Amino acid sequence: MHFYDFLENVVKQNNSLLCIGLDPVIEKIPQSVKSHEFPFFEFNKQIIDATHDLVCAYKPNSAFYEALGHEGIFQLKQTCDYIKKKYPDVVLICDAKRGDIGKTNEKYAYYCFDFLSGDAATLQPYFGGEALEPFLRREDKGCMIMCKNSNSDSGEFQDLIVNEKPLYQIIAKHFITHWNNKKNIVLVVGATYPEQMQKLRNNFPNIVFLVPGIGSQGGSVQETVQAGQTSNGKGLIISASSSIIYSSGENNFAQVARQKAMSLQNEINLHRIKLLPNQN
Amino acid sequence: MHFYDFLENVVKQNNSLLCIGLDPVIEKIPQSVKSHEFPFFEFNKQIIDATHDLVCAYKPNSAFYEALGHEGIFQLKQTCDYIKKKYPDVVLICDAKRGDIGKTNEKYAYYCFDFLSGDAATLQPYFGGEALEPFLRREDKGCMIMCKNSNSDSGEFQDLIVNEKPLYQIIAKHFITHWNNKKNIVLVVGATYPEQMQKLRNNFPNIVFLVPGIGSQGGSVQETVQAGQTSNGKGLIISASSSIIYSSGENNFAQVARQKAMSLQNEINLHRIKLLPNQN
Repeated sequence: MHFYDFLENVVKQNNSLLCIGLDPVIEKIPQSVKSHEFPFFEFNKQIIDATHDLVCAYKPNSAFYEALGHEGIFQLKQTCDYIKKKYPDVVLICDAKRGDIGKTNEKYAYYCFDFLSGDAATLQPYFGGEALEPFLRREDKGCMIMCKNSNSDSGEFQDLIVNEKPLYQIIAKHFITHWNNKKNIVLVVGATYPEQMQKLRNNFPNIVFLVPGIGSQGGSVQETVQAGQTSNGKGLIISASSSIIYSSGENNFAQVARQKAMSLQNEINLHRIKLLPNQN
Repeated sequence: MHFYDFLENVVKQNNSLLCIGLDPVIEKIPQSVKSHEFPFFEFNKQIIDATHDLVCAYKPNSAFYEALGHEGIFQLKQTCDYIKKKYPDVVLICDAKRGDIGKTNEKYAYYCFDFLSGDAATLQPYFGGEALEPFLRREDKGCMIMCKNSNSDSGEFQDLIVNEKPLYQIIAKHFITHWNNKKNIVLVVGATYPEQMQKLRNNFPNIVFLVPGIGSQGGSVQETVQAGQTSNGKGLIISASSSIIYSSGENNFAQVARQKAMSLQNEINLHRIKLLPNQN
């Protein structure tokens, strides 16, 4: 199945544009989970079981597991396998920000799409589209290209002017024009830049945006949905991590996370364009 | 010790600018090693023991280990520990091409510099210098920024013109001007682009370049050394991988790799500017 169809299916099924970032940090994990043999996996499993019907995607960030080395990667694999086995309709985003020359990207693509069974991976554009071909040729996999990132200084290079346009727009246009023949490209656009998001939406009316930066980074839900949604109230995967998963340090953390997730799901939906059933 | 001093020391000690890329691929590993419990580590160990006095650096590429998941990362860790324990003077480059927002880069920096004990890491510039601060603040660690990469289409974005200069030059200047207060920045410049390398050398007479693209990618040793060396015949870490480590599929592969490495070391040195002992 094409990635966009796969995503569309879960967005409709769960009526959700919400993605939960699974970024475990040992100091923030509740005491009851910390003593578990695989604390990251146990923590994730409880969060996943409590929220799977409220989200369109989960997004584990590889960095948080790599910091624990092979033991972390093992728990990342457990987490990914659990999601794909128990909730196969939910999109699994391998947030790894990978990018290298083509020969090396073969290996990274295998890590993200085959070893971890990711339905999508986040990617670095700097080596160019040709280099990313081992990712891009997989029509069932979402290729999420860094475009305008959420960090406050992302403009250092991303806002440089090339032919009277900022670099992030040039990169977006280049990928969508030349490297999207499998129709699997997604742009990563931070919630902290609603104006830039609006411009990208105007230029690319049907491309999906992965949106980090809601929650602890300060992006506004309302501004994000209004700037970024497509004309049918979709086209966004809005990711939140610590604001959901670390809502409580108590034993009931997963239920508190569910409440937070539901509240964010509803807040997002509040601002979405509603279509009549026969228009959807 | 500052990274540049650490590098200078081994360059002098081994009279070498050569770096060997440790990028194991199971299909290319000799039969005798393949049956080992940890074939990647065993393969690397034999290469390392046979070449440690001929190189200034080893550069395992994380992707080749990640493709094997946690079992690969375990063998990467074994490899890195072996180098740092047995040959602590040789520079260990964690070739991971990492880059994300600052909070996530804390984790990636830990992976590269602490878990793997890398003396240096390769990094993506796209999120900006501020985001890379968890790497850049470590004065004893080399921060190797993608600049002009070796792949044939690296110009897709890297050659875009910003203020009458190609993007890769802008990025190089920006990092060296604003983010090099620990004097630990290295630029990654492909051997396949000697003209561009020459321009970078003219602009940055003392910055070290990490140079992939020799060997199977077709970069010329002579052109690289002539274009890239500093006025004292240094400033380069020239990396070769498959052209050395897969020279032979027989049991004597490590000795054949030694011959190949020695030959490349000599070829590089042939083109280096020689200084009188009291000028060095």
